[in-house]
Amino acid sequence: MAQILQDIRVLDFSRIFAGPDATQMLGDLGADVIKVETPNGGDECRGLGVSGNELEQLGGMSPSFRAFNRNKRGITLDLSNPVARSVAATLAARSDVVVNNFRPGTMEKWGLGYEELKRAQPRLIYCDFHAYGAVGPLAQIGANDLALQAHSGLMSMTGAEDGPPARAGGAIIDLHASLAIVTGVMAALYHRERTGEGQRLETSLLLSSAHLMSYFYEDYWLTGKIHRRMGTANHLSVPNQAFPTLDGYAVIIAPSDEMWRRCATALSPQTLLCAAFASASERLRLRKEVVAAISAVTRRLTNAEIHDRLSKARVNVAIVQDIARAANDPQLAAIGGVFEHDEEGRAAKYVATPFQLDATSASVRRPPPKLGEHTLEILGEAGYSPAEVEALRASGAIGKGL
Amino acid sequence: MAQILQDIRVLDFSRIFAGPDATQMLGDLGADVIKVETPNGGDECRGLGVSGNELEQLGGMSPSFRAFNRNKRGITLDLSNPVARSVAATLAARSDVVVNNFRPGTMEKWGLGYEELKRAQPRLIYCDFHAYGAVGPLAQIGANDLALQAHSGLMSMTGAEDGPPARAGGAIIDLHASLAIVTGVMAALYHRERTGEGQRLETSLLLSSAHLMSYFYEDYWLTGKIHRRMGTANHLSVPNQAFPTLDGYAVIIAPSDEMWRRCATALSPQTLLCAAFASASERLRLRKEVVAAISAVTRRLTNAEIHDRLSKARVNVAIVQDIARAANDPQLAAIGGVFEHDEEGRAAKYVATPFQLDATSASVRRPPPKLGEHTLEILGEAGYSPAEVEALRASGAIGKGL
Repeated sequence: MAQILQDIRVLDFSRIFAGPDATQMLGDLGADVIKVETPNGGDECRGLGVSGNELEQLGGMSPSFRAFNRNKRGITLDLSNPVARSVAATLAARSDVVVNNFRPGTMEKWGLGYEELKRAQPRLIYCDFHAYGAVGPLAQIGANDLALQAHSGLMSMTGAEDGPPARAGGAIIDLHASLAIVTGVMAALYHRERTGEGQRLETSLLLSSAHLMSYFYEDYWLTGKIHRRMGTANHLSVPNQAFPTLDGYAVIIAPSDEMWRRCATALSPQTLLCAAFASASERLRLRKEVVAAISAVTRRLTNAEIHDRLSKARVNVAIVQDIARAANDPQLAAIGGVFEHDEEGRAAKYVATPFQLDATSASVRRPPPKLGEHTLEILGEAGYSPAEVEALRASGAIGKGL
Repeated sequence: MAQILQDIRVLDFSRIFAGPDATQMLGDLGADVIKVETPNGGDECRGLGVSGNELEQLGGMSPSFRAFNRNKRGITLDLSNPVARSVAATLAARSDVVVNNFRPGTMEKWGLGYEELKRAQPRLIYCDFHAYGAVGPLAQIGANDLALQAHSGLMSMTGAEDGPPARAGGAIIDLHASLAIVTGVMAALYHRERTGEGQRLETSLLLSSAHLMSYFYEDYWLTGKIHRRMGTANHLSVPNQAFPTLDGYAVIIAPSDEMWRRCATALSPQTLLCAAFASASERLRLRKEVVAAISAVTRRLTNAEIHDRLSKARVNVAIVQDIARAANDPQLAAIGGVFEHDEEGRAAKYVATPFQLDATSASVRRPPPKLGEHTLEILGEAGYSPAEVEALRASGAIGKGL
């Protein structure tokens, strides 16, 4: 099958999560993605969250690095070195897309800003990704996913009603931003295909977080309501939350009166199918009583029993799964949500691209690159002679170890 | 400025959050988006989360509906009526993109599946969006954002360490899926521009959730680690969480030893700048002690003082803001994160598209449509004569009220 981006080259200066995950998706769609890393250790993500021993057992790549860097080739360039910066400019002139997430002004300081690079490559699509954006009072403040969970209001809405705020357990604002980058790049590529024009694209953790919280902001602007955390519940309907079971927790959602009747009948008609709980507005008003009555039933049942009874009754139900069960979920595998790739005899697994196109395949063609793995190959393609490569090595521009 | 999708028409059968938010972004980029709703109340989102009285004061549109439905025109069609379904097919034949989120098989049952519609419009890009995908053991189970927070493992990682699971406070899996839809549509449009081929696109809450959790699944697959909830903290470094202050909570993140020294110096050198806490591995080992020592300092300071001191010391810091402060954040406004639009003399506000393209503007051209507002206009453009429209009305296909 055709690959949508098979003749597109992406030069990726980004590190950690959002940028690398975005360029990985471009790679999944067929682009030739060149990951630029510092010779001195590379993307900090290579060692993230693992001890030295574990890292050795994992072949020098953390699980997070593996999760975000398939379908790329790797080159090392020490961008503090002016020679390396001129190599980067040469590579950018041969590229369709450049992505970076340095602090605002850094790429410009290095002569690698959009205005400079587009002179040599007017069709370039150039993506700046920052924490709070490039301007405004917070532009130079360091931030990550957790900081934006706090700043955006998401954290104020997460956690137990009577407890402190909690974080959403994953780097959701970071990874949401990665899809915003890909969307913007695809929109710019489409525009370029029709007009010949490149352009600069910008997004940030802040824009990503605001998009996730947009309907709460709209609610506040229109009504003044300031929604707050409610554990697993929400203000819309009851039941609409997790309940304790014999072996964990199960989520039950029955907003309409009709679905509630089916839910009550399937769980415990004697205790739940009463007139007091029959209407949605009364269930909201008697939230505590309804939750207590349901919990009294669910505590005596297993997750599997509850899922079986309620799904048969066409009531929305889901089990609170841990990471192990979620990763090995048969449903995820059934819909092609896991890519397998043979790597030196081992069947490596990756979470798939989050959308599927029937006529054009997304797939794993390459495992994540070792640090600097394709430096010589990429320099050769860009026209550097063996003597020039030797000079780059001697100057420290590409690191000394290759 | 040019609008990227100015000659693209989108026919949108989707409801609630993900689909409408996705087509809104296509509208932001310039597409003509036609929202199809049932004459009997329309998209359930129109009344979501507000009482009857509030809804009246809001002009019949909930804040959530407003958040996800700008830049669209609206038509009412009762798809249980075969005449309405033939109108829908006629509109699809004039469209570039069709989006739906009915249960798997519903559009096919109505003669509106991809295979049928592409006969009349081979260039069509057709998006199916489901909860768990179209195949597999859970394909027919009802689910929403909360259910997928549970199923994906996110909920097991959210909440206090010693408490029950919590939900991430917003519908993040739903809204992440919306960007996956837009990315897929843009990729398919790019492919069509180069090859002339349309295609079917599919995504789901399940694929969206797996993308957000991908690095935890990868970690489990490679090391067997099952990460669990830790309040606002994580397993990577200390401090990397929210701390109580005089007037709320502040997030402090200082992973490197150098940043920790600056942090300790800025907050309380007497109590924090000690040898025991100097190395990252020791701070991880002495997590409880480090957190207690920092908390003892932050409890006596305001959010503003902490933000001021730590940002000056170049330590990552953020305030846990409530929805009011986040919605009115000066930084969000400074980077163009809020669209304003004059609507009958009122300056309506919307959260902006989550990426910005320099050469091609995203903007608000239209407020969300009233139910059926553009039915006659859209039917007229599609070639229906006044007499035919009258017959549609009489048959109930477009509702009787127009």
